[in-house]
Amino acid sequence: MDNSDSNNSKCRIIVDAMGGDFAPQNAVLGAVQALKENNFFELYLVGKEDEIKKVLKDNEAQFDDKFIINASQVIGMGDTPTTAIKAKPDSSIVVGAKLVKEKKADAFVSAGNTGAMMAASTLIMGRLPGVGRPTMGSLMPTSQGKCSIFDAGASVDSKPQHLLEYAIMGSIFMKEIHGIENPKIGILSVGEEDSKGNAVTQEAFRLLKKTNLNFVGNIEGGDILKGTVNVVICDGFVGNIVLKFGEGVLTFLKDKFKAYAGQGLVNKLKIGLVQGAMREILKDFDYQEHGGVPLLGVNGISIIGHGRSSQKAVKNMVLRAKEMYDKELVQKIQDSLSNYSNIS
Amino acid sequence: MDNSDSNNSKCRIIVDAMGGDFAPQNAVLGAVQALKENNFFELYLVGKEDEIKKVLKDNEAQFDDKFIINASQVIGMGDTPTTAIKAKPDSSIVVGAKLVKEKKADAFVSAGNTGAMMAASTLIMGRLPGVGRPTMGSLMPTSQGKCSIFDAGASVDSKPQHLLEYAIMGSIFMKEIHGIENPKIGILSVGEEDSKGNAVTQEAFRLLKKTNLNFVGNIEGGDILKGTVNVVICDGFVGNIVLKFGEGVLTFLKDKFKAYAGQGLVNKLKIGLVQGAMREILKDFDYQEHGGVPLLGVNGISIIGHGRSSQKAVKNMVLRAKEMYDKELVQKIQDSLSNYSNIS
Repeated sequence: MDNSDSNNSKCRIIVDAMGGDFAPQNAVLGAVQALKENNFFELYLVGKEDEIKKVLKDNEAQFDDKFIINASQVIGMGDTPTTAIKAKPDSSIVVGAKLVKEKKADAFVSAGNTGAMMAASTLIMGRLPGVGRPTMGSLMPTSQGKCSIFDAGASVDSKPQHLLEYAIMGSIFMKEIHGIENPKIGILSVGEEDSKGNAVTQEAFRLLKKTNLNFVGNIEGGDILKGTVNVVICDGFVGNIVLKFGEGVLTFLKDKFKAYAGQGLVNKLKIGLVQGAMREILKDFDYQEHGGVPLLGVNGISIIGHGRSSQKAVKNMVLRAKEMYDKELVQKIQDSLSNYSNIS
Repeated sequence: MDNSDSNNSKCRIIVDAMGGDFAPQNAVLGAVQALKENNFFELYLVGKEDEIKKVLKDNEAQFDDKFIINASQVIGMGDTPTTAIKAKPDSSIVVGAKLVKEKKADAFVSAGNTGAMMAASTLIMGRLPGVGRPTMGSLMPTSQGKCSIFDAGASVDSKPQHLLEYAIMGSIFMKEIHGIENPKIGILSVGEEDSKGNAVTQEAFRLLKKTNLNFVGNIEGGDILKGTVNVVICDGFVGNIVLKFGEGVLTFLKDKFKAYAGQGLVNKLKIGLVQGAMREILKDFDYQEHGGVPLLGVNGISIIGHGRSSQKAVKNMVLRAKEMYDKELVQKIQDSLSNYSNIS
């Protein structure tokens, strides 16, 4: 890495070239594609140098060697996160997180092992002051408006204070990145009435009432896709289950349509006619469109992609990192957390 | 009520004639329909006598007056459950639950206020020995096999011991009612590995390992509709959110298809062609097909229906109550709980 760049005001983004099921191919080419679309940042590829160079050469992609940072180890998708980041100090994930920690880079993007990426971001980059738990946000398709779920699975057994942090961080993210002036915040619960919920959400409700955030109260599972609120607050245990269940519903429906199409030519023709429509409708659920989820609350920009990330998804993750840098998201989160630090 | 019947071996089922958004119409006619299909039980209609009689007369339905039990009050869908069951002692829900408590009836079926029905069943009928929390089970559509979620929302902040109870009760329900010899049980969690989960599910995992139930470990949100397991165990907070989110996904997709069809004649024709297929596919999600959810763990049979229950749904609820009686489900649950009472 060219250390002379470290005081450069250009955003420095590191991409984990070894991250994802189709690495290094998709990670490398997606990252280079982002640079083609927007060259107002510096791109670094971290991973096995020879493999990175091979992908670049095979695809005739232009990329200056001095922006390749060698990392001899790879954390696999099946590795145990916290063990792996200790056992593999020269892995692309650990090396990337360290460069952000050392202020040699501003952002780290990876479609690799999600748990390892969360652990490396939290333990190596470190948490911002006032953050008990960093949070991942996942954008949901909605009938109208934009909506993200915080926490989408970064941690479980969140305490009320953590839900408050998610609301503060999620609100800033939706404002700065999705342009929603005063994001509506709702707690995911089992009824809309103020008194509904479990012990943790009821207490979080009380805390959120004390803020001047645009907290609208409790929402139900059926409200998420309506876009009733812009920020859905929940424990990561619930958020993870909701997201995976949603994917499961889509898989179930696709399988059913496929089975229907398999029952003879007429059915096949019918389904064929609406295939375009279905693709259009289901595209809102396509993670590749937005590419990756941000991990908020760590000291730096960290974006984690789906293992199956396409080149387009990686490209979008890099551009999102750039946007988060330009909008000084980390600093704004820190300021807002500090404003609300007296709430209890 | 004809008390001379109280020692009769015929199953005595009470239907809340005032329960549901379309009561007394749907409740009364659905119940009478069940009696037409299977007359090996005694049906009692509880509610405002004059209203019940009017529905019967208007629809020329044959029903002996002596099986109508007057209850002068009605708990509305918006009433606060625990307050309402105290404030309205002569409501159909309270009167119905009391008749089961007094062993004058075996089963109580209502499509009324869910919370009030749960409260009345739990507080008036009472819990079975060894039950900390009664549980509601909701049948899910699956790619293969049958699967119910316990708890689907009867209680929140369930403790590990409660999840064990749900597993025991759910397993018996799926065996006796759905004919699955050795139901596979999974804990809904954030990963399949044994160590994944929150504090409560991890401890429940340990407890379930000690049973000889067919416990297969943790499952993820995306596994529910695959039918990986027959009994999904979770806290009612999670179960309620999952179920409502699932309904939300379907509503979202239907709205999207409708919007697509609205964009011109060609689109409308295309969607029209597959409407039958879609209806067929989505019918698995139709609560009216199975009608109502059982509340297990109370001392009697209690079945709670959706507020929007159709006549068919009410009919199915009544027939389900009859089946639970014939299969001695309450006794079997009590026996099984007693077998596992030493697990901790």
